[in-house]
Amino acid sequence: MADLIRNEVFSCFVFYGVLLVIKMYIVAIITGQVRLRKKAFANPEDALRHGGLQYHRQDPYVERCRRAHVNDMENILPFLFLAAIYSMTGPSLAVARIHFLVFFMARVLHTIAYLFALRAPTRSLAYTVAQIPCISMAVQILIAVAAYA
Amino acid sequence: MADLIRNEVFSCFVFYGVLLVIKMYIVAIITGQVRLRKKAFANPEDALRHGGLQYHRQDPYVERCRRAHVNDMENILPFLFLAAIYSMTGPSLAVARIHFLVFFMARVLHTIAYLFALRAPTRSLAYTVAQIPCISMAVQILIAVAAYA
Amino acid sequence: MADLIRNEVFSCFVFYGVLLVIKMYIVAIITGQVRLRKKAFANPEDALRHGGLQYHRQDPYVERCRRAHVNDMENILPFLFLAAIYSMTGPSLAVARIHFLVFFMARVLHTIAYLFALRAPTRSLAYTVAQIPCISMAVQILIAVAAYA
Repeated sequence: MADLIRNEVFSCFVFYGVLLVIKMYIVAIITGQVRLRKKAFANPEDALRHGGLQYHRQDPYVERCRRAHVNDMENILPFLFLAAIYSMTGPSLAVARIHFLVFFMARVLHTIAYLFALRAPTRSLAYTVAQIPCISMAVQILIAVAAYA
Repeated sequence: MADLIRNEVFSCFVFYGVLLVIKMYIVAIITGQVRLRKKAFANPEDALRHGGLQYHRQDPYVERCRRAHVNDMENILPFLFLAAIYSMTGPSLAVARIHFLVFFMARVLHTIAYLFALRAPTRSLAYTVAQIPCISMAVQILIAVAAYA
Repeated sequence: MADLIRNEVFSCFVFYGVLLVIKMYIVAIITGQVRLRKKAFANPEDALRHGGLQYHRQDPYVERCRRAHVNDMENILPFLFLAAIYSMTGPSLAVARIHFLVFFMARVLHTIAYLFALRAPTRSLAYTVAQIPCISMAVQILIAVAAYA
Protein backbone atom coordinates (compact mmCIF):
# COMPACT_ATOMS: atom_id res chain seq x y z
CA MET A 1 0.00 0.00 0.00
CA ALA A 2 1.29 3.43 -0.92
CA ASP A 3 2.67 5.62 1.86
CA LEU A 4 0.29 8.47 1.05
CA ILE A 5 -2.78 6.54 2.10
CA ARG A 6 -1.15 5.76 5.49
CA ASN A 7 -0.69 9.48 6.14
CA GLU A 8 -3.34 10.65 8.61
CA VAL A 9 -3.90 14.04 6.94
CA PHE A 10 -4.12 12.47 3.48
CA SER A 11 -6.57 9.82 4.74
CA CYS A 12 -8.67 12.56 6.31
CA PHE A 13 -8.72 14.40 2.96
CA VAL A 14 -9.60 11.18 1.13
CA PHE A 15 -12.50 10.55 3.51
CA TYR A 16 -14.13 13.94 2.86
CA GLY A 17 -13.14 13.91 -0.82
CA VAL A 18 -14.91 10.60 -1.44
CA LEU A 19 -18.01 11.79 0.45
CA LEU A 20 -18.10 14.90 -1.76
CA VAL A 21 -17.81 12.78 -4.92
CA ILE A 22 -20.72 10.65 -3.66
CA LYS A 23 -22.63 13.90 -2.99
CA MET A 24 -22.05 14.90 -6.63
CA TYR A 25 -23.29 11.49 -7.79
CA ILE A 26 -26.45 12.00 -5.71
CA VAL A 27 -27.13 15.33 -7.47
CA ALA A 28 -26.79 13.46 -10.81
CA ILE A 29 -29.26 10.79 -9.64
CA ILE A 30 -31.72 13.47 -8.44
CA THR A 31 -31.44 15.22 -11.85
CA GLY A 32 -32.28 11.96 -13.62
CA GLN A 33 -35.25 11.31 -11.32
CA VAL A 34 -36.58 14.86 -11.82
CA ARG A 35 -36.28 14.41 -15.62
CA LEU A 36 -38.41 11.24 -15.39
CA ARG A 37 -41.00 12.73 -13.01
CA LYS A 38 -41.32 16.06 -14.90
CA LYS A 39 -40.95 14.34 -18.30
CA ALA A 40 -38.30 16.80 -19.49
CA PHE A 41 -35.49 15.20 -21.51
CA ALA A 42 -32.41 16.79 -23.03
CA ASN A 43 -32.28 14.18 -25.81
CA PRO A 44 -35.03 13.25 -28.32
CA GLU A 45 -34.18 9.54 -28.02
CA ASP A 46 -34.92 9.68 -24.27
CA ALA A 47 -38.18 11.57 -24.86
CA LEU A 48 -39.26 8.97 -27.45
CA ARG A 49 -38.75 6.20 -24.92
CA HIS A 50 -40.79 8.06 -22.30
CA GLY A 51 -43.91 9.08 -24.19
CA GLY A 52 -42.94 11.13 -27.23
CA LEU A 53 -40.96 14.02 -28.68
CA GLN A 54 -43.11 16.58 -26.84
CA TYR A 55 -41.09 15.64 -23.73
CA HIS A 56 -37.85 16.74 -25.39
CA ARG A 57 -37.99 20.00 -23.47
CA GLN A 58 -36.44 22.04 -20.68
CA ASP A 59 -37.80 22.25 -17.15
CA PRO A 60 -36.82 24.96 -14.66
CA TYR A 61 -36.20 22.49 -11.85
CA VAL A 62 -34.09 20.20 -14.04
CA GLU A 63 -32.04 23.28 -15.00
CA ARG A 64 -31.64 24.11 -11.31
CA CYS A 65 -30.29 20.60 -10.63
CA ARG A 66 -27.91 21.04 -13.60
CA ARG A 67 -26.61 24.34 -12.22
CA ALA A 68 -26.05 22.74 -8.80
CA HIS A 69 -24.04 19.97 -10.49
CA VAL A 70 -21.94 22.34 -12.63
CA ASN A 71 -21.20 24.49 -9.57
CA ASP A 72 -20.06 21.34 -7.76
CA MET A 73 -17.66 20.56 -10.60
CA GLU A 74 -16.32 24.13 -10.53
CA ASN A 75 -15.56 23.89 -6.82
CA ILE A 76 -15.28 20.28 -5.62
CA LEU A 77 -12.93 19.12 -8.40
CA PRO A 78 -10.36 21.91 -7.74
CA PHE A 79 -10.72 21.14 -4.00
CA LEU A 80 -9.68 17.53 -4.67
CA PHE A 81 -6.46 18.83 -6.27
CA LEU A 82 -5.72 21.53 -3.68
CA ALA A 83 -6.49 19.32 -0.67
CA ALA A 84 -4.43 16.39 -2.00
CA ILE A 85 -1.38 18.62 -2.47
CA TYR A 86 -1.99 20.51 0.78
CA SER A 87 -2.00 17.13 2.61
CA MET A 88 1.55 16.57 1.33
CA THR A 89 2.85 19.87 2.76
CA GLY A 90 2.85 18.57 6.32
CA PRO A 91 0.00 20.46 8.01
CA SER A 92 -1.15 19.41 11.48
CA LEU A 93 -4.08 16.99 11.40
CA ALA A 94 -6.26 19.31 13.47
CA VAL A 95 -5.77 22.32 11.19
CA ALA A 96 -6.14 20.23 8.02
CA ARG A 97 -9.32 18.59 9.32
CA ILE A 98 -10.85 22.04 9.91
CA HIS A 99 -10.07 23.00 6.29
CA PHE A 100 -11.68 19.82 4.92
CA LEU A 101 -14.66 19.89 7.29
CA VAL A 102 -15.53 23.55 6.61
CA PHE A 103 -15.39 22.89 2.85
CA PHE A 104 -17.42 19.70 3.17
CA MET A 105 -20.17 21.21 5.31
CA ALA A 106 -20.39 24.40 3.25
CA ARG A 107 -20.71 22.41 0.01
CA VAL A 108 -23.43 20.16 1.49
CA LEU A 109 -25.27 23.34 2.57
CA HIS A 110 -24.71 24.78 -0.93
CA THR A 111 -26.41 21.76 -2.51
CA ILE A 112 -29.32 21.90 -0.04
CA ALA A 113 -29.71 25.67 -0.63
CA TYR A 114 -29.68 25.09 -4.40
CA LEU A 115 -32.08 22.15 -4.56
CA PHE A 116 -34.57 23.66 -2.08
CA ALA A 117 -34.15 27.19 -3.55
CA LEU A 118 -33.49 28.58 -0.07
CA ARG A 119 -33.75 32.35 0.29
CA ALA A 120 -30.73 34.33 -0.98
CA PRO A 121 -27.98 34.74 0.08
CA THR A 122 -27.88 31.29 1.75
CA ARG A 123 -26.40 29.56 -1.31
CA SER A 124 -23.91 32.35 -2.10
CA LEU A 125 -22.84 32.40 1.54
CA ALA A 126 -22.24 28.63 1.49
CA TYR A 127 -20.21 29.05 -1.72
CA THR A 128 -18.10 31.83 -0.16
CA VAL A 129 -17.47 29.94 3.09
CA ALA A 130 -16.36 26.87 1.06
CA GLN A 131 -13.87 29.03 -0.84
CA ILE A 132 -12.10 30.18 2.35
CA PRO A 133 -10.32 26.84 3.08
CA CYS A 134 -9.54 26.54 -0.65
CA ILE A 135 -7.82 29.94 -0.75
CA SER A 136 -6.05 29.12 2.52
CA MET A 137 -4.75 25.82 1.09
CA ALA A 138 -3.74 27.47 -2.21
CA VAL A 139 -1.66 30.08 -0.35
CA GLN A 140 -0.03 27.47 1.93
CA ILE A 141 0.83 25.27 -1.08
CA LEU A 142 2.39 28.20 -2.95
CA ILE A 143 4.54 28.96 0.13
CA ALA A 144 5.52 25.29 0.46
CA VAL A 145 6.57 24.79 -3.18
CA ALA A 146 8.29 28.19 -3.32
CA ALA A 147 10.93 26.65 -1.01
CA TYR A 148 11.56 23.71 -3.39
CA ALA A 149 10.78 25.14 -6.82
CA MET B 1 10.89 8.33 -10.69
CA ALA B 2 8.21 8.29 -8.04
CA ASP B 3 7.23 4.95 -6.51
CA LEU B 4 3.58 5.35 -7.44
CA ILE B 5 4.24 5.09 -11.14
CA ARG B 6 6.17 1.82 -10.60
CA ASN B 7 3.13 0.29 -8.89
CA GLU B 8 1.39 -2.09 -11.30
CA VAL B 9 -2.14 -1.16 -10.24
CA PHE B 10 -1.38 2.57 -10.39
CA SER B 11 0.19 2.17 -13.84
CA CYS B 12 -2.86 0.27 -15.01
CA PHE B 13 -5.10 3.11 -13.74
CA VAL B 14 -2.87 5.70 -15.41
CA PHE B 15 -3.10 3.84 -18.72
CA TYR B 16 -6.91 3.87 -18.80
CA GLY B 17 -7.08 7.35 -17.22
CA VAL B 18 -4.93 8.87 -19.97
CA LEU B 19 -6.95 7.08 -22.68
CA LEU B 20 -10.14 8.54 -21.18
CA VAL B 21 -8.65 12.06 -21.15
CA ILE B 22 -7.72 11.62 -24.82
CA LYS B 23 -11.29 10.41 -25.43
CA MET B 24 -12.56 13.67 -23.87
CA TYR B 25 -10.18 15.69 -26.07
CA ILE B 26 -11.59 13.88 -29.12
CA VAL B 27 -15.14 14.92 -28.16
CA ALA B 28 -13.89 18.54 -27.96
CA ILE B 29 -12.30 18.26 -31.42
CA ILE B 30 -15.51 16.75 -32.84
CA THR B 31 -17.53 19.62 -31.30
CA GLY B 32 -15.24 22.15 -32.98
CA GLN B 33 -15.48 20.39 -36.34
CA VAL B 34 -19.29 20.21 -36.12
CA ARG B 35 -19.40 23.95 -35.30
CA LEU B 36 -17.39 24.66 -38.47
CA ARG B 37 -19.41 22.30 -40.69
CA LYS B 38 -22.82 23.41 -39.38
CA LYS B 39 -21.70 27.04 -39.06
CA ALA B 40 -23.00 27.37 -35.50
CA PHE B 41 -20.76 29.40 -33.21
CA ALA B 42 -21.18 30.20 -29.53
CA ASN B 43 -19.24 33.47 -29.89
CA PRO B 44 -19.94 36.39 -32.25
CA GLU B 45 -16.20 36.84 -32.95
CA ASP B 46 -16.02 33.25 -34.27
CA ALA B 47 -19.14 33.74 -36.40
CA LEU B 48 -17.67 36.94 -37.87
CA ARG B 49 -14.58 35.05 -38.93
CA HIS B 50 -16.63 32.31 -40.57
CA GLY B 51 -19.15 34.23 -42.62
CA GLY B 52 -21.07 36.63 -40.42
CA LEU B 53 -23.11 37.20 -37.26
CA GLN B 54 -25.98 35.05 -38.59
CA TYR B 55 -23.80 32.05 -37.70
CA HIS B 56 -23.74 33.07 -34.03
CA ARG B 57 -26.41 30.50 -33.28
CA GLN B 58 -27.15 27.18 -31.62
CA ASP B 59 -27.30 23.86 -33.42
CA PRO B 60 -28.94 20.72 -31.98
CA TYR B 61 -26.00 18.48 -32.87
CA VAL B 62 -23.45 20.90 -31.41
CA GLU B 63 -25.53 20.93 -28.20
CA ARG B 64 -25.51 17.12 -28.22
CA CYS B 65 -21.68 17.13 -28.43
CA ARG B 66 -21.62 19.64 -25.57
CA ARG B 67 -23.82 17.43 -23.40
CA ALA B 68 -21.57 14.43 -24.12
CA HIS B 69 -18.56 16.48 -23.03
CA VAL B 70 -20.18 17.80 -19.84
CA ASN B 71 -21.31 14.28 -18.92
CA ASP B 72 -17.71 13.11 -19.41
CA MET B 73 -16.51 15.80 -17.00
CA GLU B 74 -19.15 14.78 -14.44
CA ASN B 75 -18.02 11.17 -14.54
CA ILE B 76 -14.46 10.79 -15.88
CA LEU B 77 -12.91 13.50 -13.66
CA PRO B 78 -14.28 11.96 -10.40
CA PHE B 79 -13.10 8.56 -11.72
CA LEU B 80 -9.55 9.90 -12.01
CA PHE B 81 -9.67 10.84 -8.31
CA LEU B 82 -11.36 7.64 -7.08
CA ALA B 83 -9.21 5.31 -9.19
CA ALA B 84 -5.94 7.04 -8.17
CA ILE B 85 -6.78 6.68 -4.47
CA TYR B 86 -8.18 3.17 -4.92
CA SER B 87 -4.87 2.16 -6.54
CA MET B 88 -3.13 3.15 -3.29
CA THR B 89 -5.31 0.90 -1.13
CA GLY B 90 -3.56 -2.27 -2.28
CA PRO B 91 -6.13 -4.05 -4.46
CA SER B 92 -5.11 -7.06 -6.55
CA LEU B 93 -4.14 -6.14 -10.10
CA ALA B 94 -6.79 -8.46 -11.58
CA VAL B 95 -9.65 -6.95 -9.56
CA ALA B 96 -8.43 -3.39 -10.12
CA ARG B 97 -8.07 -3.95 -13.85
CA ILE B 98 -11.69 -5.14 -14.05
CA HIS B 99 -12.81 -1.90 -12.31
CA PHE B 100 -10.84 0.30 -14.73
CA LEU B 101 -11.74 -1.71 -17.84
CA VAL B 102 -15.48 -1.77 -17.11
CA PHE B 103 -15.46 2.00 -16.55
CA PHE B 104 -13.37 2.61 -19.66
CA MET B 105 -15.49 0.48 -21.98
CA ALA B 106 -18.78 1.78 -20.59
CA ARG B 107 -17.65 5.41 -21.05
CA VAL B 108 -16.51 4.75 -24.62
CA LEU B 109 -19.93 3.19 -25.30
CA HIS B 110 -21.57 6.20 -23.59
CA THR B 111 -19.82 8.59 -25.99
CA ILE B 112 -20.72 6.45 -29.04
CA ALA B 113 -24.36 6.22 -27.87
CA TYR B 114 -24.46 10.00 -27.34
CA LEU B 115 -22.82 11.07 -30.61
CA PHE B 116 -24.79 8.58 -32.74
CA ALA B 117 -28.03 9.16 -30.78
CA LEU B 118 -28.44 5.40 -30.28
CA ARG B 119 -31.87 4.25 -29.15
CA ALA B 120 -32.61 4.73 -25.43
CA PRO B 121 -31.68 3.33 -22.98
CA THR B 122 -28.26 2.47 -24.50
CA ARG B 123 -26.63 5.67 -23.26
CA SER B 124 -28.24 5.55 -19.78
CA LEU B 125 -27.24 1.91 -19.47
CA ALA B 126 -23.62 2.74 -20.33
CA TYR B 127 -23.70 5.56 -17.74
CA THR B 128 -25.08 3.20 -15.06
CA VAL B 129 -22.59 0.40 -15.82
CA ALA B 130 -19.72 2.93 -15.59
CA GLN B 131 -20.97 4.04 -12.17
CA ILE B 132 -20.73 0.52 -10.71
CA PRO B 133 -16.89 0.38 -10.50
CA CYS B 134 -16.93 3.97 -9.20
CA ILE B 135 -19.30 3.14 -6.33
CA SER B 136 -17.30 -0.03 -5.65
CA MET B 137 -14.04 1.97 -5.46
CA ALA B 138 -15.65 4.69 -3.30
CA VAL B 139 -16.85 2.08 -0.78
CA GLN B 140 -13.46 0.30 -0.71
CA ILE B 141 -11.64 3.61 -0.21
CA LEU B 142 -13.93 4.62 2.67
CA ILE B 143 -13.25 1.22 4.33
CA ALA B 144 -9.48 1.64 3.77
CA VAL B 145 -9.20 5.16 5.20
CA ALA B 146 -11.58 4.36 8.08
CA ALA B 147 -8.74 2.21 9.44
CA TYR B 148 -6.24 5.12 9.35
CA ALA B 149 -8.42 8.22 9.78
CA MET C 1 6.08 15.64 4.26
CA ALA C 2 5.46 13.35 1.32
CA ASP C 3 8.32 12.70 -1.10
CA LEU C 4 6.33 13.92 -4.08
CA ILE C 5 6.24 17.50 -2.88
CA ARG C 6 10.06 17.49 -2.51
CA ASN C 7 10.44 16.52 -6.16
CA GLU C 8 11.48 19.57 -8.19
CA VAL C 9 9.38 18.70 -11.23
CA PHE C 10 6.33 17.93 -9.11
CA SER C 11 6.76 21.21 -7.19
CA CYS C 12 7.03 23.08 -10.46
CA PHE C 13 3.78 21.45 -11.64
CA VAL C 14 2.09 22.26 -8.33
CA PHE C 15 3.12 25.91 -8.64
CA TYR C 16 1.50 26.37 -12.06
CA GLY C 17 -1.41 24.08 -11.19
CA VAL C 18 -2.35 26.19 -8.16
CA LEU C 19 -2.02 29.42 -10.17
CA LEU C 20 -4.39 27.97 -12.79
CA VAL C 21 -6.93 27.00 -10.12
CA ILE C 22 -6.75 30.56 -8.75
CA LYS C 23 -7.24 31.79 -12.34
CA MET C 24 -10.43 29.68 -12.55
CA TYR C 25 -11.63 31.11 -9.22
CA ILE C 26 -11.09 34.63 -10.61
CA VAL C 27 -13.31 33.81 -13.62
CA ALA C 28 -16.00 32.68 -11.17
CA ILE C 29 -15.68 35.93 -9.19
CA ILE C 30 -15.87 37.98 -12.41
CA THR C 31 -19.01 36.06 -13.43
CA GLY C 32 -20.63 36.89 -10.09
CA GLN C 33 -19.69 40.55 -10.35
CA VAL C 34 -21.06 40.77 -13.94
CA ARG C 35 -24.33 39.16 -12.76
CA LEU C 36 -24.66 41.86 -10.08
CA ARG C 37 -23.73 44.74 -12.39
CA LYS C 38 -25.89 43.58 -15.32
CA LYS C 39 -28.64 42.35 -12.98
CA ALA C 40 -28.89 38.96 -14.70
CA PHE C 41 -29.43 36.05 -12.30
CA ALA C 42 -29.73 32.35 -13.07
CA ASN C 43 -31.90 31.76 -10.01
CA PRO C 44 -35.21 33.49 -9.10
CA GLU C 45 -34.20 33.66 -5.41
CA ASP C 46 -31.13 35.72 -6.36
CA ALA C 47 -33.20 38.01 -8.63
CA LEU C 48 -35.71 38.57 -5.81
CA ARG C 49 -32.92 39.69 -3.50
CA HIS C 50 -31.57 42.10 -6.11
CA GLY C 51 -34.66 43.95 -7.31
CA GLY C 52 -37.25 41.45 -8.53
CA LEU C 53 -38.05 38.48 -10.74
CA GLN C 54 -37.52 40.56 -13.93
CA TYR C 55 -33.79 40.13 -13.26
CA HIS C 56 -34.07 36.34 -13.49
CA ARG C 57 -32.73 36.47 -17.01
CA GLN C 58 -29.78 35.67 -19.25
CA ASP C 59 -27.15 38.17 -20.31
CA PRO C 60 -24.76 37.64 -23.25
CA TYR C 61 -21.70 38.70 -21.26
CA VAL C 62 -22.59 36.49 -18.30
CA GLU C 63 -22.94 33.58 -20.75
CA ARG C 64 -19.52 34.45 -22.18
CA CYS C 65 -18.00 34.26 -18.69
CA ARG C 66 -19.76 30.91 -18.18
CA ARG C 67 -18.32 29.53 -21.42
CA ALA C 68 -14.82 30.68 -20.40
CA HIS C 69 -15.25 28.86 -17.08
CA VAL C 70 -16.58 25.64 -18.64
CA ASN C 71 -13.72 25.65 -21.17
CA ASP C 72 -11.30 26.02 -18.25
CA MET C 73 -12.81 22.96 -16.59
CA GLU C 74 -12.57 20.99 -19.82
CA ASN C 75 -8.87 21.77 -20.16
CA ILE C 76 -7.30 22.77 -16.83
CA LEU C 77 -8.74 19.87 -14.82
CA PRO C 78 -7.38 17.19 -17.22
CA PHE C 79 -4.05 19.10 -17.22
CA LEU C 80 -3.87 18.72 -13.42
CA PHE C 81 -4.15 14.94 -13.87
CA LEU C 82 -1.76 14.65 -16.83
CA ALA C 83 0.89 16.97 -15.37
CA ALA C 84 0.82 15.28 -11.95
CA ILE C 85 1.40 11.84 -13.52
CA TYR C 86 3.92 13.21 -16.04
CA SER C 87 5.91 14.67 -13.12
CA MET C 88 6.26 11.12 -11.76
CA THR C 89 7.75 9.75 -15.00
CA GLY C 90 11.12 11.40 -14.40
CA PRO C 91 11.29 14.17 -17.01
CA SER C 92 14.06 16.77 -16.83
CA LEU C 93 13.06 19.90 -14.94
CA ALA C 94 13.80 22.13 -17.95
CA VAL C 95 11.62 20.14 -20.35
CA ALA C 96 8.82 19.74 -17.80
CA ARG C 97 8.85 23.46 -16.99
CA ILE C 98 8.41 24.29 -20.69
CA HIS C 99 5.35 21.99 -20.80
CA PHE C 100 3.79 23.64 -17.75
CA LEU C 101 4.71 27.20 -18.74
CA VAL C 102 3.35 26.90 -22.30
CA PHE C 103 0.07 25.50 -20.94
CA PHE C 104 -0.13 28.16 -18.23
CA MET C 105 0.53 31.11 -20.54
CA ALA C 106 -1.76 29.80 -23.29
CA ARG C 107 -4.62 29.32 -20.81
CA VAL C 108 -4.15 32.82 -19.36
CA LEU C 109 -4.26 34.17 -22.93
CA HIS C 110 -7.36 32.01 -23.60
CA THR C 111 -9.17 33.63 -20.66
CA ILE C 112 -8.12 37.14 -21.73
CA ALA C 113 -9.20 36.42 -25.33
CA TYR C 114 -12.55 35.09 -24.09
CA LEU C 115 -13.38 37.85 -21.60
CA PHE C 116 -12.30 40.67 -23.93
CA ALA C 117 -13.82 38.97 -27.02
CA LEU C 118 -10.54 39.39 -28.90
CA ARG C 119 -10.73 38.90 -32.65
CA ALA C 120 -10.83 35.29 -33.84
CA PRO C 121 -8.79 33.11 -33.99
CA THR C 122 -6.88 34.43 -30.91
CA ARG C 123 -8.89 32.33 -28.45
CA SER C 124 -8.88 29.17 -30.60
CA LEU C 125 -5.14 29.57 -31.13
CA ALA C 126 -4.55 29.85 -27.36
CA TYR C 127 -6.68 26.72 -26.85
CA THR C 128 -4.69 24.81 -29.48
CA VAL C 129 -1.29 25.89 -28.15
CA ALA C 130 -2.34 24.81 -24.63
CA GLN C 131 -3.28 21.37 -25.96
CA ILE C 132 0.21 20.72 -27.36
CA PRO C 133 1.94 20.14 -23.97
CA CYS C 134 -1.09 18.10 -22.87
CA ILE C 135 -0.84 15.74 -25.86
CA SER C 136 2.94 15.58 -25.38
CA MET C 137 2.51 14.62 -21.70
CA ALA C 138 -0.23 12.08 -22.52
CA VAL C 139 2.04 10.35 -25.05
CA GLN C 140 5.02 10.33 -22.69
CA ILE C 141 2.88 8.92 -19.87
CA LEU C 142 1.52 6.13 -22.10
CA ILE C 143 5.11 5.22 -23.06
CA ALA C 144 6.19 5.28 -19.39
CA VAL C 145 3.39 3.07 -18.08
CA ALA C 146 3.60 0.70 -21.07
CA ALA C 147 6.92 -0.42 -19.59
CA TYR C 148 5.34 -1.24 -16.21
CA ALA C 149 1.74 -2.15 -17.07
